[in-house]
Amino acid sequence: MVIMIKRNSPKEKIEHLVTWLQEKEFIVRQFHGEDQLVLGIIGKTATLDLEMLQSLDIVETASQMSDPFKAANRKMHPEDSIISIGGVKIGGGNFDIMAGPCSVESREQITYIAQKIKEAGVGLLRGGAFKPRTSPYDFQGLKDEGLELLKEARKATGLPIVTELMDAKQIHLFEDIDCIQVGARNTQNYDLLKEIGKTKTPVLLKRGLAGTIKELLMSAEYIMANGNENVILCERGIRTYESDYTRNTLDLSAVPVLRKLTHLPIVVDPSHGTGKADLVPSMALAAAAAGADGLMIEVHNDPANALSDGPQCLTPEEFHTLAGQIRQIREVITQ
Amino acid sequence: MVIMIKRNSPKEKIEHLVTWLQEKEFIVRQFHGEDQLVLGIIGKTATLDLEMLQSLDIVETASQMSDPFKAANRKMHPEDSIISIGGVKIGGGNFDIMAGPCSVESREQITYIAQKIKEAGVGLLRGGAFKPRTSPYDFQGLKDEGLELLKEARKATGLPIVTELMDAKQIHLFEDIDCIQVGARNTQNYDLLKEIGKTKTPVLLKRGLAGTIKELLMSAEYIMANGNENVILCERGIRTYESDYTRNTLDLSAVPVLRKLTHLPIVVDPSHGTGKADLVPSMALAAAAAGADGLMIEVHNDPANALSDGPQCLTPEEFHTLAGQIRQIREVITQ
Amino acid sequence: MVIMIKRNSPKEKIEHLVTWLQEKEFIVRQFHGEDQLVLGIIGKTATLDLEMLQSLDIVETASQMSDPFKAANRKMHPEDSIISIGGVKIGGGNFDIMAGPCSVESREQITYIAQKIKEAGVGLLRGGAFKPRTSPYDFQGLKDEGLELLKEARKATGLPIVTELMDAKQIHLFEDIDCIQVGARNTQNYDLLKEIGKTKTPVLLKRGLAGTIKELLMSAEYIMANGNENVILCERGIRTYESDYTRNTLDLSAVPVLRKLTHLPIVVDPSHGTGKADLVPSMALAAAAAGADGLMIEVHNDPANALSDGPQCLTPEEFHTLAGQIRQIREVITQ
Amino acid sequence: MVIMIKRNSPKEKIEHLVTWLQEKEFIVRQFHGEDQLVLGIIGKTATLDLEMLQSLDIVETASQMSDPFKAANRKMHPEDSIISIGGVKIGGGNFDIMAGPCSVESREQITYIAQKIKEAGVGLLRGGAFKPRTSPYDFQGLKDEGLELLKEARKATGLPIVTELMDAKQIHLFEDIDCIQVGARNTQNYDLLKEIGKTKTPVLLKRGLAGTIKELLMSAEYIMANGNENVILCERGIRTYESDYTRNTLDLSAVPVLRKLTHLPIVVDPSHGTGKADLVPSMALAAAAAGADGLMIEVHNDPANALSDGPQCLTPEEFHTLAGQIRQIREVITQ
Repeated sequence: MVIMIKRNSPKEKIEHLVTWLQEKEFIVRQFHGEDQLVLGIIGKTATLDLEMLQSLDIVETASQMSDPFKAANRKMHPEDSIISIGGVKIGGGNFDIMAGPCSVESREQITYIAQKIKEAGVGLLRGGAFKPRTSPYDFQGLKDEGLELLKEARKATGLPIVTELMDAKQIHLFEDIDCIQVGARNTQNYDLLKEIGKTKTPVLLKRGLAGTIKELLMSAEYIMANGNENVILCERGIRTYESDYTRNTLDLSAVPVLRKLTHLPIVVDPSHGTGKADLVPSMALAAAAAGADGLMIEVHNDPANALSDGPQCLTPEEFHTLAGQIRQIREVITQ
Repeated sequence: MVIMIKRNSPKEKIEHLVTWLQEKEFIVRQFHGEDQLVLGIIGKTATLDLEMLQSLDIVETASQMSDPFKAANRKMHPEDSIISIGGVKIGGGNFDIMAGPCSVESREQITYIAQKIKEAGVGLLRGGAFKPRTSPYDFQGLKDEGLELLKEARKATGLPIVTELMDAKQIHLFEDIDCIQVGARNTQNYDLLKEIGKTKTPVLLKRGLAGTIKELLMSAEYIMANGNENVILCERGIRTYESDYTRNTLDLSAVPVLRKLTHLPIVVDPSHGTGKADLVPSMALAAAAAGADGLMIEVHNDPANALSDGPQCLTPEEFHTLAGQIRQIREVITQ
Repeated sequence: MVIMIKRNSPKEKIEHLVTWLQEKEFIVRQFHGEDQLVLGIIGKTATLDLEMLQSLDIVETASQMSDPFKAANRKMHPEDSIISIGGVKIGGGNFDIMAGPCSVESREQITYIAQKIKEAGVGLLRGGAFKPRTSPYDFQGLKDEGLELLKEARKATGLPIVTELMDAKQIHLFEDIDCIQVGARNTQNYDLLKEIGKTKTPVLLKRGLAGTIKELLMSAEYIMANGNENVILCERGIRTYESDYTRNTLDLSAVPVLRKLTHLPIVVDPSHGTGKADLVPSMALAAAAAGADGLMIEVHNDPANALSDGPQCLTPEEFHTLAGQIRQIREVITQ
Repeated sequence: MVIMIKRNSPKEKIEHLVTWLQEKEFIVRQFHGEDQLVLGIIGKTATLDLEMLQSLDIVETASQMSDPFKAANRKMHPEDSIISIGGVKIGGGNFDIMAGPCSVESREQITYIAQKIKEAGVGLLRGGAFKPRTSPYDFQGLKDEGLELLKEARKATGLPIVTELMDAKQIHLFEDIDCIQVGARNTQNYDLLKEIGKTKTPVLLKRGLAGTIKELLMSAEYIMANGNENVILCERGIRTYESDYTRNTLDLSAVPVLRKLTHLPIVVDPSHGTGKADLVPSMALAAAAAGADGLMIEVHNDPANALSDGPQCLTPEEFHTLAGQIRQIREVITQ
């Protein structure tokens, strides 16, 4: 149930209502919009007397809400959320790109790429230190050392960093990370989501390998229900029957669909979404035109010798050109 | 097998080679590029002596081609094909929009919409006279009468018309139609494709409901192998597990993938691709940014009362605004 | 809307009701069950006064029916339909196998295989004369000649024949065929379905390449609404993301799902459903255990040299063993 | 690479070869078959001299192996693996059923159901204590208390227990559990798999929500590469476009496909695979006919009031009847 509280309602009356609901074992979540308070009531709300609630003098409207997602729901929070990653804003008209290699490989590599993407005008550095690989025999990332190298690249360039956390046990290593990524294989690893929910670190939450839009929102809900509202959603391609020419099918309609359903920012990853470097520019431009709040793009100084996902990486030069075109598309879209 | 013939080779030597191949029961297709002839050899080409062929003085290169599609293959025809629909060009840098209602409903309706889309700067009118409907009890279109009404709208506005043919038996009714559409349920109706292949009318060939990119190209091949090379491919959304918020999943990566594989123009239909009018603008802009050669968009004067597919139609006013934005995206893409 | 007429109602009263409904432009379909008449009313039935209808003395019950399929609906026809193919019954407890090669290749081949499957105790011969092939350059079947060879094999063995019709123009060639197959690529070729609906020949209707269960029933409805109620449904595998090890994903749950929804018999094709001969026996046994009314299995005397679909054919010897095991499973299921 | 060692080879020669390979930084895994040792060599085996290895007197054959799964590969371990869950064997001709409620709800509930399934002749009790739920607001299981209640039900009936572990942090609570289940949302939670790999507890590894067969085997590989070879694979339905009538599409062809690829036992879960109680009996019988080594079936004393997944539970009476039919199918299959 959603209760919109009238502006300038006395604080004690609001508290009284909240306490009364909590005593009846409802979970009450408070959303402070620009100038109005919204209460989200979770539990068997069918037992509540809607008319009685609507008649209270502090209540503007009270209505049942059938969507299973509450905190992420735009109905509870009509304005776009703006998430700040180390000072770089995403959402609510703010657009930026997270670029960098799939895996951090060495100090020279990550710092070089960070400098190159900064020159291309981009605000965020991405790179994997802990890597989820289908095979236990494949390179699993530089781990702790990779995180340190990312921090050095951040120091050298000023770019905030985005990197993946795979296991709740490593969360203490991510305290100084600007944005935690949850990968597609962990989108429904609920215990991991709960742990991240206890921090305040911005989260880039990827859609599952074959995840529905509703599941993506429910996974955001796990993080938000535990106290962390800084969630950015990421479309990264879904699994379909078409796999001869693309690794996944990038579902760009997820951008306008999510825009309606949620106030959270939406980022698109055309690198994993297609798995082919030569498809990335077209799909990056298309994602920008569809209204994404940001992009995640893999850039590698030497794609042919990358330790992971080389075939989908752009070179710094290709990326530089693309970043300029993306800015032009943004101008058309936002004018 | 693909044989590139050297420029200025004597005609009789070429004919001699072609005859020799035909006598060995190979099918030989000739593709005349801007200044070079390419021969496509179909059959058990593994039995041919590649070195012998390469050593002929009229042969520049001869190589096996593993792709099952030949006539549609860019390797045989490196330049983009440009298809003229009643004088309106699609492909090779030429972009246009096919707009109009799902079903032709009356003279007033189709003529009114035609005028409105013409005012929006669009070059082609679409509208269904024969309608494939999942239920035998649903409205099946105005049929012959619908075709006549389309021609009247063409006369009133000068816009060439695109409309669907469902059954080879009706092909005689389509002689004066500018572009024949093959719908998603008929993409692999091979007898229909063969019949259309015997005409020279431009064809808009839709991808199957859950068709692969390869199947789309093979269906184009059925039309082309019968003599009609005027084929335009159309991405219209594919069937995936995600159906809560969209009717289909629009696969925009099909645009750059097809661009590499084939010389045929590629049009995107965001109306069927999403099934929701409020998603159409974002997806139309995204398709243009992805490099499509054209768009097919449903426009209806009164979507709430449309006889078919109302929920995915734009009003003429919404369409007018969108068409302007699409032109701006095209400017960014083609500069 | 479904109206159950009371037993022993006077014929003129029933006719009076039917005429009254038809004058209001409803389509009225009559289903004669074992001892009761059911009327299916198609049209805008929301405008009918349900209470008035229920109060008529010849009406037992009248109720709205939300399912879009009517003639195929079990609610209209509670008993299982039994379809006779040249005297061999399928449905309502009658089980049989349609076996034979993917393509008819020669008189010797088809007659030999027919004899072999007859020895295995099987009642129906299948074989393709008209072949839908993804590539226009592949073998397209022996066509008319293939039909003649099938009839010769029938004459030699007494086995009724099942074979595919691809184009309504060829329907006159199928007058003496016992069961017309509609292939997966033509499941929504509505003009073909309508033509077949005008005959009384039993039809084996395959589920589309990625067809839903509802679409399969709606396609059956196209045939039945045109007058031919002899429809057998065929599950033949659906297109999913899993294609490394199987050609399609055989959806055996379609058997019990369809059993609830429709009175039509359900046959399973594990040969196309898996595309691998070594998976066919397990899946054939599983289909029988799931309650299928029949199976369609590809058998070829020399799978390695079959002109089409060799990798999914069993040898006559393998088939003989399998047919025996299937009979044992049927015994467990039906006891 | 796979190296088959000759029978009766001297132990020191084998050790010498293993050490030599390990010094070259290859991972060497030893598989002891019934009477032969097989070495699996993991790493850049292309650098090894195959002919040299083949010429060693203790080597019977040495060959490259392209499959990415090694420990789970039947090529390395030709005989079926037999896994003992608290004395109840699965695999290699041994078949059993894991039955019980989706969630443990109370002492009375779980003990009652355990007794009922024991009466039905079944060997293993399943029940969820930790529940992965899409919504953070839904019942998440009785957790520690649920595990205790399961142990009490085991004590009362003697049935070994199978229950899900969601988070590596809880693994210490599972020391006295007979079989750890990894749920479909955690199939690629690699850190969880690694932790379970350090135990010797039998594992029931479910296929991912839209997981491929190869991914399932690679996840088994994560467990086995860490030392735990007691892995049972579980087909539980995959996500497809068909969701009107079933929750998932049960992929029974996975049974014979996995049988070829791996020596690990294969269990089928028709309850989650269909999501509908009335489809479970048909699909359970079909799974048995397809050759599954076991079944997992949800049974609840009061499905209408179950705290989770009620619509897919059988009553104890329905289950009793089904278990008898399954035994009859097994008799046909194994005779």
